[in-house]
Amino acid sequence: MFEIKAKDGKGRVGVLKTKHGDVKTPALMPVIHPRKQALDVSKYGADIVITNAYLIYKDPELKQKAIDEGLHKLINFDGPIMTDSGSFQLSVYGDVEITNKEVIEFQEMIKTDIGTSLDIPTAPFVDRQQAESDMEITIERAREAIDYKKEQNMEMLLNSVVQGSTFLDLRRECAKELSALDADLYPIGAVVPLMESYHYRDLVDVVMNSMKELSDTVPRHLMGAGHPMIFALCVAMGCDLFDSAAYILYAEDDRLLSTRGTFKLENLQEMPCSCEVCTKYTPDDLRAMPKEKRRDLIAQHNLHVSFAELRLIRQAIYDGNLMELVEERCRAHPALLEAQRQLGNYSADLEKYDPRSKKSAFFYTGPESLCRPEVLRHMQKLREMPKKRDLLILPPTKKPYSKFISGKLGEFYIYGAEQELDLENTDFMVLDIPFGLIPLEIDEVYPLSQNDAPKTRDVDSIEFIEDFITEFVEYYEQVLIHSRIIKDLEIGLYNKCSFEDIRYQKDDVKKVKAIADYQFGVGAGDALFKGNIIIEKSKKTGKIRHIYDGKVLIVNMRASDSYLILSKEGAKRLHNAMPYPQNRVVVNKDSEPFALDGKSVFCKFVVECDEDIRAKDEVLIVNEQDKLLAYGKALLGACEIEQFETGQAIKTRKGMRK
Amino acid sequence: MFEIKAKDGKGRVGVLKTKHGDVKTPALMPVIHPRKQALDVSKYGADIVITNAYLIYKDPELKQKAIDEGLHKLINFDGPIMTDSGSFQLSVYGDVEITNKEVIEFQEMIKTDIGTSLDIPTAPFVDRQQAESDMEITIERAREAIDYKKEQNMEMLLNSVVQGSTFLDLRRECAKELSALDADLYPIGAVVPLMESYHYRDLVDVVMNSMKELSDTVPRHLMGAGHPMIFALCVAMGCDLFDSAAYILYAEDDRLLSTRGTFKLENLQEMPCSCEVCTKYTPDDLRAMPKEKRRDLIAQHNLHVSFAELRLIRQAIYDGNLMELVEERCRAHPALLEAQRQLGNYSADLEKYDPRSKKSAFFYTGPESLCRPEVLRHMQKLREMPKKRDLLILPPTKKPYSKFISGKLGEFYIYGAEQELDLENTDFMVLDIPFGLIPLEIDEVYPLSQNDAPKTRDVDSIEFIEDFITEFVEYYEQVLIHSRIIKDLEIGLYNKCSFEDIRYQKDDVKKVKAIADYQFGVGAGDALFKGNIIIEKSKKTGKIRHIYDGKVLIVNMRASDSYLILSKEGAKRLHNAMPYPQNRVVVNKDSEPFALDGKSVFCKFVVECDEDIRAKDEVLIVNEQDKLLAYGKALLGACEIEQFETGQAIKTRKGMRK
Repeated sequence: MFEIKAKDGKGRVGVLKTKHGDVKTPALMPVIHPRKQALDVSKYGADIVITNAYLIYKDPELKQKAIDEGLHKLINFDGPIMTDSGSFQLSVYGDVEITNKEVIEFQEMIKTDIGTSLDIPTAPFVDRQQAESDMEITIERAREAIDYKKEQNMEMLLNSVVQGSTFLDLRRECAKELSALDADLYPIGAVVPLMESYHYRDLVDVVMNSMKELSDTVPRHLMGAGHPMIFALCVAMGCDLFDSAAYILYAEDDRLLSTRGTFKLENLQEMPCSCEVCTKYTPDDLRAMPKEKRRDLIAQHNLHVSFAELRLIRQAIYDGNLMELVEERCRAHPALLEAQRQLGNYSADLEKYDPRSKKSAFFYTGPESLCRPEVLRHMQKLREMPKKRDLLILPPTKKPYSKFISGKLGEFYIYGAEQELDLENTDFMVLDIPFGLIPLEIDEVYPLSQNDAPKTRDVDSIEFIEDFITEFVEYYEQVLIHSRIIKDLEIGLYNKCSFEDIRYQKDDVKKVKAIADYQFGVGAGDALFKGNIIIEKSKKTGKIRHIYDGKVLIVNMRASDSYLILSKEGAKRLHNAMPYPQNRVVVNKDSEPFALDGKSVFCKFVVECDEDIRAKDEVLIVNEQDKLLAYGKALLGACEIEQFETGQAIKTRKGMRK
Repeated sequence: MFEIKAKDGKGRVGVLKTKHGDVKTPALMPVIHPRKQALDVSKYGADIVITNAYLIYKDPELKQKAIDEGLHKLINFDGPIMTDSGSFQLSVYGDVEITNKEVIEFQEMIKTDIGTSLDIPTAPFVDRQQAESDMEITIERAREAIDYKKEQNMEMLLNSVVQGSTFLDLRRECAKELSALDADLYPIGAVVPLMESYHYRDLVDVVMNSMKELSDTVPRHLMGAGHPMIFALCVAMGCDLFDSAAYILYAEDDRLLSTRGTFKLENLQEMPCSCEVCTKYTPDDLRAMPKEKRRDLIAQHNLHVSFAELRLIRQAIYDGNLMELVEERCRAHPALLEAQRQLGNYSADLEKYDPRSKKSAFFYTGPESLCRPEVLRHMQKLREMPKKRDLLILPPTKKPYSKFISGKLGEFYIYGAEQELDLENTDFMVLDIPFGLIPLEIDEVYPLSQNDAPKTRDVDSIEFIEDFITEFVEYYEQVLIHSRIIKDLEIGLYNKCSFEDIRYQKDDVKKVKAIADYQFGVGAGDALFKGNIIIEKSKKTGKIRHIYDGKVLIVNMRASDSYLILSKEGAKRLHNAMPYPQNRVVVNKDSEPFALDGKSVFCKFVVECDEDIRAKDEVLIVNEQDKLLAYGKALLGACEIEQFETGQAIKTRKGMRK
């Protein structure tokens, strides 16, 4: 029903399958008025639309036509159609002349692709009692709708709407209750007032708390969100579907949508985008037109910019730079920047979904970048890494640092009294923005070299690296800091180190062991690289390519991100050394022979997996007795692998039978 | 020849007049190949193009046709055409087979609209000696060209190119020498290598140093800049013209331009913008096409996004939010963010050109916003304002603060020993981002209320307001700080104030006097508002609208930005009180009668003016004996008024004769 095709953070490109065709997500569903629709939205990029079943139900003529000829004929659209249930009318007028069961039955009767139960949209900032009682009714009706659908063997997919107002625990509770049901899509409801009043920070709280409990296997629809200014932010939070009456409502009011906000036609001297309308007409042309023609052209512009933004978002997910796009978009208004800063507090939630390696470099775009999942992950990994007695901290060079660090390293300062030096028992690290301390052995691993930041540092960055030092100094007996850093950061209490000829001794074996520990967990390096280790490098780039024990290949190193790719021998060694379930995906008995033959692993056959697995990780495939069956590359993160019942989980490199 | 129509910072919308029509700037001139041009660029928004006179000269067939039929027929373009002189070829091949005089003569002969002398493009980071000697030749040839043009009575406009490599004093020197000549346009040359290597920070230094000495009356052309990613930044530095072969060169290489950078077609799954090409085709469609058709479509896309960006930039100048656009665009790459941070060091240069009031609110988009001209200007103004004995600092409320501050103000802390309180002798200020301290009397004046910042503060902001306090505490005997600020900022060394019932007493007369001092200079308030002051407010909004002495109107207050608009009486009082040349534009004898009649003042009649005048300022118009002739609103800043020989300087409100 829903499959993930590409991921970046919690954002995903997916495919939603309906009986009227597939929809690529994130997608925008233009709202179609069943009676007065002027524009053929499919011309401007709409693959799916939304209309209101209750409005059709209330209009005898439309109702009869819908029952006789079907919804698709009624609104003249061949693709998938979602219908809303009248709950918006309920929220506006306080009452509707239809029951939950009736509206479900009616939606199936007119052959909608996706129907909706009659939820109660609870406005933001109401009192808790109302939010609770509304939510209970909403959950009850969702349950009733799902039961009724099953009982009647209905074909349509079903929306179950998350409510709970701005009470974050209620949003979580509602999402949890609904996820236990068998709904096909989860809209997040009643957020329009938050968006209209620029409460984007609260929007982040509401969406992220709903997301905490919503199943990952089901598309999430941010109801009523139709302004392209917020699409990127919301996709980064995990939203897959948007709907929009904005394109036409704004057009009726002579307002043009853009990712930078809204332009009033009366204030425009220039057309603001590259679309057909903006290149063919001037603002004066539009102002001189009859109202209806102008409205249609502005609506076309609004659709063009909305669909272009979704294309750009999907491309950013493919490229692995969605967060950079979000950070750019959130400069359009201080309330959006505030929302982005708030999203930084949910970094651990995003990290769980964030692929380990991406096509794009990590770009530092401001203090908010320090809260990104990649930074959090590196800090956690670094804390776990084995530590030598002493730590030596170097200023950044060009990247990869280890390539440009050689010879005498210069003057150092030591915290406290100087002990004797033992460079063999010293960790060499570079101090840089945005990853803090980077051990030289792992500096080529994504994203530790694949990142860029401005040279002029903001104060948040400076505090960030100062905090990093303060923490890591505690883990070592003796810490040497390069004089340039002491000068830059105005660090006191350090004494000049008497030893003047400090050099960094490159050691490829240490390097690959450190990478293995960083990638697979502590101990992996020693386990993988024992015996007669031979390291083969690319003649062209000088980079490590293959690592052998004698003539037996253990791992390859991927040139683009320096992660290790297991061979059969590597997989065996890792399997022997690392405790269950680390690095493992556990498949059920039925799929055992397929895995042994090297066939890819589908989610539905996975019974358990290491919760630290992220998309693009190298993983071991084992049976429930921890017998190694195969090894391969994860396509999803652990939480997704465990939840999905369809689609591939692991692209197997090789089965152990072969 | 060139007129400014709208301004924001150093950015400007202008009109360049040529014999083949007017060009609205900032403008992009697509490079036309005189022989193998495939695309009719006028279809995609080009009003002016550039081609290479030397290439035509070198090709006997083209040369003959150009001489016989003219350049416009040769390249089939009816609008204005600029020609380059072969200096690019000189920089690549080290030599050209033409002299400076010959190329000037040839360009006039083929009827170009704008010709170029044979400058020497000096690459960045060469040795100083070379940069100097190249520059001398460049200046000499510019002089020769201008003399030759005068001597021969040529019709074409002339480019004189600023060189000097990355030596900033040489750029300034070259710009100064050229500005003394009578050139019609100033290209800034040899910056392409900086852009190609992402040395945007150096680009800022080179451009801003050239700008320091270039005449404001002449369009500035950033030679070879054709990537829409940097247009906004460069316009904010004062560039008016760009030229681009990028649209076709990138297309030949299957690369798509965007304001976020460059997309390689091979990596695209989605088309990245809203243009006709991006809506009609998929990346797969393009990849399947014959090379030439694909190239033309990608070139069309490249032109669409480039012209759309220029429209958006011009709109941002009209709206007064160019810097917000720059701050957004500079998130596209850390090297651009670095450039923007560097531009912050030229804030005083930008402030001179920045209108006092704008249509848009000031949006805080990150630490860089603290370096904006508006912030610098407020700090300077605030330092000049008269100060009471004590200072009381309040935390921010909704804006305008003075509307939401009432009743008991809460607990305060005092630096040092407590003296008796004298609230009559106390300045009440709010501490906020991004304007630091805002006296309550002037809090409605643009942009002190017309701004927005995220609630979550970055550390730069916190340091900024801490520094503000540290400085201003010194100007007062006793400083009271609200307990919430003490808590927020963790300020020590303050003792709790014993007095508990501190209130802010609103006083409209004090308010309008403070605004007058802030707007016109210290002393203006007392001078304007003496006698029987009657303040009339809007019944609808409660805002001050008119201020009288008895029945005589002194000033109106503009609702949108709370600046004072002079009446005849107000102008007289201001003129009496403020010393020459403060608040004044001095016109020559000839224009005296026109000014007295209330006709608007043109730049060419201005002999002197107060250097603190900024666009949108209320100003007095006087003769050289300081007789008040009229009063009105400045349309340009002081430096522009003094330099321009064409166009309006002041929109006169009234002449004193009437």
